[in-house]
Amino acid sequence: ALTLLFFLFLADAVARWREEGRLAVWLHVPILQSRFAAAAASQGFDFHHAEQGSSTLTLWLGEGPSRLPGYATHQLGVAGAVLDESTGKVLVVQDRNKTLNAWKFPGGLANPGEDIGDTAVREVFEETGIKSEFKSILSLRQQHQHPGAFGKSDMYIICRLQPSSFDIRFCRQECLRCEWMDLQELARTKDATPITSNVAKLLLYGYREGFGKIDLTMREFPAVYTGRFYKLYHRELPQPYRNI
Amino acid sequence: ALTLLFFLFLADAVARWREEGRLAVWLHVPILQSRFAAAAASQGFDFHHAEQGSSTLTLWLGEGPSRLPGYATHQLGVAGAVLDESTGKVLVVQDRNKTLNAWKFPGGLANPGEDIGDTAVREVFEETGIKSEFKSILSLRQQHQHPGAFGKSDMYIICRLQPSSFDIRFCRQECLRCEWMDLQELARTKDATPITSNVAKLLLYGYREGFGKIDLTMREFPAVYTGRFYKLYHRELPQPYRNI
Repeated sequence: ALTLLFFLFLADAVARWREEGRLAVWLHVPILQSRFAAAAASQGFDFHHAEQGSSTLTLWLGEGPSRLPGYATHQLGVAGAVLDESTGKVLVVQDRNKTLNAWKFPGGLANPGEDIGDTAVREVFEETGIKSEFKSILSLRQQHQHPGAFGKSDMYIICRLQPSSFDIRFCRQECLRCEWMDLQELARTKDATPITSNVAKLLLYGYREGFGKIDLTMREFPAVYTGRFYKLYHRELPQPYRNI
Repeated sequence: ALTLLFFLFLADAVARWREEGRLAVWLHVPILQSRFAAAAASQGFDFHHAEQGSSTLTLWLGEGPSRLPGYATHQLGVAGAVLDESTGKVLVVQDRNKTLNAWKFPGGLANPGEDIGDTAVREVFEETGIKSEFKSILSLRQQHQHPGAFGKSDMYIICRLQPSSFDIRFCRQECLRCEWMDLQELARTKDATPITSNVAKLLLYGYREGFGKIDLTMREFPAVYTGRFYKLYHRELPQPYRNI
């Protein structure tokens, strides 16, 4: 009976909003009241997104296709290329449960609200036991309809990290192997994913000719809306251009 | 009655799966059948995500907090810094409906499945009428709990684009102003967002001393799973290092 009441109320309200020239209706439905989501869907509402105990539905009333902003489209994976500059060795792992036992840099998915460098440092520590510090971003990859992302896109960033501990204690749930491998060997081996080989070559270039050749470094800025800061990554800007 | 039957069936099944040592249950519920989502929620299920006509719920049965992968955490915005190298002028806009009338590069949110460079080129054309070609990525910014991202994170990438048309016909729904502005003037003006000023300085550095100083260029690779390609962006790798 309550659902029927809601159905009639909503139909009436939507008709009025349409007459008033409104462009869209947003509806928030707690998961335990999901029967109201079904009632709204029978009037053309769709899910915009849902998380934990709450869903958000929308109905587009304007002309043509919906111009409402979509929801998050990307997951973010971050890996760390941890180079021991004193030995020229880099930290690599082989995943457990993968058909292809190729060497790669340790890494994983960002937690909500986590900064890129923090994800790299955390994932490297969880997988390998190695402590490290963020230095720069080396590469960025975008992949669509990613099998591990529920059909969404995947952004994958590799960071350059500097180790502050060297004794490997790797996670046997996630990794089959973990070792410090000579960087030139990693750049040459066939037993690495294409992206790992490529970034190993890039890192070797930086190691030999200066990391300034390969790094995207970070600067922090205050956000336009108050109280927050954001991190911007790009090529180091020489001093004369900073105060131009 | 059907909802009650489902409730009893689910309770029974979950008890059995728990005994069998299963780690998690996934449940897909069409929006018109959302009363089943409410029934599942009363047994501890939560939304994992929902889109259009379908929701996905999960129940974690393992020990400790859920180790299930989350859903997409980032929206992606892409802007284009379109530089006319023959005049040293760059394409800038001022947004309509913003308190702060600061100059910025035209851009907007990526469509699902759209490549970074394609988003930049499309958004520049939609906002300004200028046709252009993707050259490189210049910068990357990450911001959390973004007001325009439903509490999710925002990734914002600025690309370097080369114009192939020069006659501005800007979108008056989105933009208040649009012009070709001298790059050095943009790098110096107070009437620009901090990120725009900063990337203008970077672009000026590249314009004067070679874009090779500032560019992240793109290479395409076959994905590990068949039939797809992905784009990898990093600093240009000199030839000797490619065939090391």
